[in-house]
Amino acid sequence: MKKVAIVMGSDSDLMIMKETAEVLEEFAVEYRLTVISAHRTPGVAENFAKNAVGDGYQVIIAGAGKAAHLAGILAAYTTLPVIGVPIKTSSLGGADSLYSVVQMPAGVPVATVALDGAKNAAILAVQMLALAEPELREQLAEYKTNMARKVQKTAAELEEKGYNKYLADRRSSN
Amino acid sequence: MKKVAIVMGSDSDLMIMKETAEVLEEFAVEYRLTVISAHRTPGVAENFAKNAVGDGYQVIIAGAGKAAHLAGILAAYTTLPVIGVPIKTSSLGGADSLYSVVQMPAGVPVATVALDGAKNAAILAVQMLALAEPELREQLAEYKTNMARKVQKTAAELEEKGYNKYLADRRSSN
Amino acid sequence: MKKVAIVMGSDSDLMIMKETAEVLEEFAVEYRLTVISAHRTPGVAENFAKNAVGDGYQVIIAGAGKAAHLAGILAAYTTLPVIGVPIKTSSLGGADSLYSVVQMPAGVPVATVALDGAKNAAILAVQMLALAEPELREQLAEYKTNMARKVQKTAAELEEKGYNKYLADRRSSN
Amino acid sequence: MKKVAIVMGSDSDLMIMKETAEVLEEFAVEYRLTVISAHRTPGVAENFAKNAVGDGYQVIIAGAGKAAHLAGILAAYTTLPVIGVPIKTSSLGGADSLYSVVQMPAGVPVATVALDGAKNAAILAVQMLALAEPELREQLAEYKTNMARKVQKTAAELEEKGYNKYLADRRSSN
Amino acid sequence: MKKVAIVMGSDSDLMIMKETAEVLEEFAVEYRLTVISAHRTPGVAENFAKNAVGDGYQVIIAGAGKAAHLAGILAAYTTLPVIGVPIKTSSLGGADSLYSVVQMPAGVPVATVALDGAKNAAILAVQMLALAEPELREQLAEYKTNMARKVQKTAAELEEKGYNKYLADRRSSN
Amino acid sequence: MKKVAIVMGSDSDLMIMKETAEVLEEFAVEYRLTVISAHRTPGVAENFAKNAVGDGYQVIIAGAGKAAHLAGILAAYTTLPVIGVPIKTSSLGGADSLYSVVQMPAGVPVATVALDGAKNAAILAVQMLALAEPELREQLAEYKTNMARKVQKTAAELEEKGYNKYLADRRSSN
Amino acid sequence: MKKVAIVMGSDSDLMIMKETAEVLEEFAVEYRLTVISAHRTPGVAENFAKNAVGDGYQVIIAGAGKAAHLAGILAAYTTLPVIGVPIKTSSLGGADSLYSVVQMPAGVPVATVALDGAKNAAILAVQMLALAEPELREQLAEYKTNMARKVQKTAAELEEKGYNKYLADRRSSN
Amino acid sequence: MKKVAIVMGSDSDLMIMKETAEVLEEFAVEYRLTVISAHRTPGVAENFAKNAVGDGYQVIIAGAGKAAHLAGILAAYTTLPVIGVPIKTSSLGGADSLYSVVQMPAGVPVATVALDGAKNAAILAVQMLALAEPELREQLAEYKTNMARKVQKTAAELEEKGYNKYLADRRSSN
Repeated sequence: MKKVAIVMGSDSDLMIMKETAEVLEEFAVEYRLTVISAHRTPGVAENFAKNAVGDGYQVIIAGAGKAAHLAGILAAYTTLPVIGVPIKTSSLGGADSLYSVVQMPAGVPVATVALDGAKNAAILAVQMLALAEPELREQLAEYKTNMARKVQKTAAELEEKGYNKYLADRRSSN
Repeated sequence: MKKVAIVMGSDSDLMIMKETAEVLEEFAVEYRLTVISAHRTPGVAENFAKNAVGDGYQVIIAGAGKAAHLAGILAAYTTLPVIGVPIKTSSLGGADSLYSVVQMPAGVPVATVALDGAKNAAILAVQMLALAEPELREQLAEYKTNMARKVQKTAAELEEKGYNKYLADRRSSN
Repeated sequence: MKKVAIVMGSDSDLMIMKETAEVLEEFAVEYRLTVISAHRTPGVAENFAKNAVGDGYQVIIAGAGKAAHLAGILAAYTTLPVIGVPIKTSSLGGADSLYSVVQMPAGVPVATVALDGAKNAAILAVQMLALAEPELREQLAEYKTNMARKVQKTAAELEEKGYNKYLADRRSSN
Repeated sequence: MKKVAIVMGSDSDLMIMKETAEVLEEFAVEYRLTVISAHRTPGVAENFAKNAVGDGYQVIIAGAGKAAHLAGILAAYTTLPVIGVPIKTSSLGGADSLYSVVQMPAGVPVATVALDGAKNAAILAVQMLALAEPELREQLAEYKTNMARKVQKTAAELEEKGYNKYLADRRSSN
Repeated sequence: MKKVAIVMGSDSDLMIMKETAEVLEEFAVEYRLTVISAHRTPGVAENFAKNAVGDGYQVIIAGAGKAAHLAGILAAYTTLPVIGVPIKTSSLGGADSLYSVVQMPAGVPVATVALDGAKNAAILAVQMLALAEPELREQLAEYKTNMARKVQKTAAELEEKGYNKYLADRRSSN
Repeated sequence: MKKVAIVMGSDSDLMIMKETAEVLEEFAVEYRLTVISAHRTPGVAENFAKNAVGDGYQVIIAGAGKAAHLAGILAAYTTLPVIGVPIKTSSLGGADSLYSVVQMPAGVPVATVALDGAKNAAILAVQMLALAEPELREQLAEYKTNMARKVQKTAAELEEKGYNKYLADRRSSN
Repeated sequence: MKKVAIVMGSDSDLMIMKETAEVLEEFAVEYRLTVISAHRTPGVAENFAKNAVGDGYQVIIAGAGKAAHLAGILAAYTTLPVIGVPIKTSSLGGADSLYSVVQMPAGVPVATVALDGAKNAAILAVQMLALAEPELREQLAEYKTNMARKVQKTAAELEEKGYNKYLADRRSSN
Repeated sequence: MKKVAIVMGSDSDLMIMKETAEVLEEFAVEYRLTVISAHRTPGVAENFAKNAVGDGYQVIIAGAGKAAHLAGILAAYTTLPVIGVPIKTSSLGGADSLYSVVQMPAGVPVATVALDGAKNAAILAVQMLALAEPELREQLAEYKTNMARKVQKTAAELEEKGYNKYLADRRSSN
């Protein structure tokens, strides 16, 4: 059964939102990924959210841009935690997307991550799922350790080579 | 039959949104004024918007603040023109309300007026209604004339008195 | 007789504003499309707006950027509804255009759509015209249905193919 | 055992953050509420976060303002979900607090709610806890129903009384 | 003959704009101060600007807030230099007023001063007038000297008294 | 004798600021164009501004970006009108440049034009010079007429050809 | 000999900037506190900065608001480290002050602290002085310890009393 | 012994932060350059900062973007001066990075330079070191002189050649 639903307002958000899927795959968390528009398919949004608990979802991740109402309207219809990913567009530096997702009124929260923060939406979802599944907590700890290790490896390489050689090597390996 | 619906996300918006009602009264346009929350009563919002054409409404005016999705979600469910009034809150100078109302995706417009622009929402609604009711057009012309006359009267008084006496008189008449 | 006037401050806005024309064509609504500058041809703007009712226009759509006064100055001279399209420029994320169009003083509204929201300006105009022409209301309902269908088709294709194949197919079809 | 930790950067945030405590009390969720400063007591922050899993916490809620690093630094040290409440200060409309909390780099999410969104932080925490405790899901559904009912009662009263009487009554009951 | 016209969009701007008048009085420059609304009395604005050269004005100062088009529309109709004073309102920190005044398109400049910068509008006008009237240049030099002297007197008093006594004395003299 | 000084903080501003020179050439106004940095050559800035009146300059135009102090510091040292051109950089949408130029304290105005508004700086300078040179006023009137004519010609061509052919022709002529 | 100079653009900044003095007094660091305006007394600013090294100053702290050029212009004339305190004014949320101080061009840094961050300016100055005076480093360590202790005491009191009693006690002690 | 530590949150910041290293090399100041992430390697950050005094560092320079907590968290653990370089990212014009670095709470300053102001971070560090090393003060004076000379050379070349030839020559020399 799929535990996480990843929905986005338009397939133009897919290049960002697929990163959510990729991270969930790393954690072997099953998900459904689809397109639902708060404004163009509001009935679909409503039905999806109303049935989300019954359909076995445990977390909903919604990515949308501009006047980004998708996460909010899903949160209005469900008691599941809804994670909002504001998608940066070319206007207003992305402030429109961010404010539309995060500034929810009292009573109906959306757990907002950074602009285009699709990866973090997945990790946050796993952190939530881990409340009921301790083995995910272990995976998260391992993920954290790997992240740290990767940063430290980068640091060691940079310190050893110096910035000129480091940058030259990176360029040539691209 | 009521032609205009004035809805707002919370009764805390009423001090602003009653100005819409007052202007419609000046034009003798019947309206319904109520509270509907996109996030707390999404089903009410949906039903209201789906039935708005059948119920005889011709224009919907929606005021809301913060992540202000009310106008957008009503517009998602109706083919009537929806006028959005972003309500200024204490955060972000009101940019959150404004962006959430105006930055709608292609396909589902919201006719947005200024922050706290409740009066203009009413005038815009009358301008729309006047497309089918020529006598409203005449009232609008008269309204415009009166506005201009009032500004010119102010200007004449100010020029005659000078700014010191003008300000003193205004203070004493308050 | 042309019901809608589409005006823009400069022909550099045409790549955006032609989308208004294209949508009106879909609805078979006749329009006039031209360039009028609030600041470089103020007399033309004034004459156009003063005569707009007499010339049979029912809605005016005005696109402009930066200190975008065009919609406002037209609204000052007419009782027709004026729809403003703030055109995003390279500065300030477009906030200059948006604020200049939407923040109108009490008495003279401009129905503002999103930055570069030329399509929505057309749909909003049709929604207004539909107040007097019921057949347009039907077209709007159909337009809404088609939009929803298109989103749902996208969703189905994405769910069936998975995101990798979906993106690959889209790339190869470009 | 306390499931939720509510921490804040300074006791000047308490007037906001106590709303988190009050909502958790409504849901009968035990919590610890304390002050930890990312910058003035970084060691306390580190120890708290490192031990949070072992201490039995399941969700951490962190409120802070300005360059609000508290939620982020706790998230750096734990695999528990961390909810960030950006506290609005007098500068920059609160954008400094919001951006500092929400714009986390990939790998370390903070589930951000609205500026001063302390109530929603509590509801979001309960939504997370409900993943393992179905009875909380029921409470959430009831909470949603009550919220809707309250809005509808307000709407009914407003429609019955009209806005003048409604506002007058509200004033006299204060 | 009056050389400077001070116009403002509404008498609510008078508390700010009277500072322009006061500074011009210091320089013994004659002015006319009045109210003209770009949106409510556009015809008055047009006539005023078209006749401004013929009427003997040499500089126009225009104060307005929100979607502040007054300075721009006057500049559209005259070849005189137009100084714009963006009036800060309660929304958007005044950015709406500022952007609407300053972001003029190529061909039609507005010499913009700070938000609520009514005093500087007067000084700038005098600097312009001084191009043809050398005795004003001398007055400007003296004004500059007096300003500097006043700052230096403040500095001396503060250094002599120390900040505690300085602040105490200032409080008691209010 | 050169009446206008065009100074800029860095030769990276030259691509913008040369437009000032080009417009002044159209008006046959002599100018000096040079680079002076408020922060890297403060002494040069001071000397230039202190001597500007004696050197026969009548208007100073200063372009700078980021923390753009050049116009302000020149204005501090001279009684000539100083026109500031905020140069847009890649950060903050140019708000840093704009605010640094326009938000001058009382007593020392900078006549600010739009971001990258180098052309308007020249026109504004000519408007100022015209206070003492009536033949420039005539040139300005002619410039205005030409601008209007050009817009009207564009409008006529667009209306005649329709937008498709108009855009195609424009593309092929590039 | 005075090691730190605290200058501010106007005595209206004194309520903020005296906090710099108070913190320096805690560290027994001698300072001079005065008013110098970059725009109204530019010559004083220049002389002060040019002589600052010779006069024995080691750090300069400059507070100013709006188009806040004071710190930048001092930095232009000295090789001493200059700390800038952007003073929040009522416009633009203080962004004008902040951007004017921090966005310095390459070559001339200003060490910028938070809006109204006068206390931190003092601590930063002491951190700089400690590079040559080890006993200040010890004082700084002690200051840090005291800060941490104070936060922990607050935390303990809050946890012991609970938020209701804590807030009640705080109110009654005011 | 290395006096300056240059740390950055990710090697994606290296293209900017290497400019800090290059300027320090000009001044012959030894430095260590490495990658430390406040959120991915918080323990490394803590250890580094705690030991920085003992390890002989005198100044820390930290570059980071988005919710840029690196400089702040280092400052929390050390009494050394910490210079923060906010790295501009593609969102929000860089305001997120800037606000996260500069808006530190009272007690824990970060000396913030401009967005991407890596060069100025180095110069500021040298200015601090010069408090204990007078020969660096001389180098700074020379650096200032060279900067001024370079600007003046540019100015002379531009004035001699005129802007057309100057730009043409610059293009051909690239």
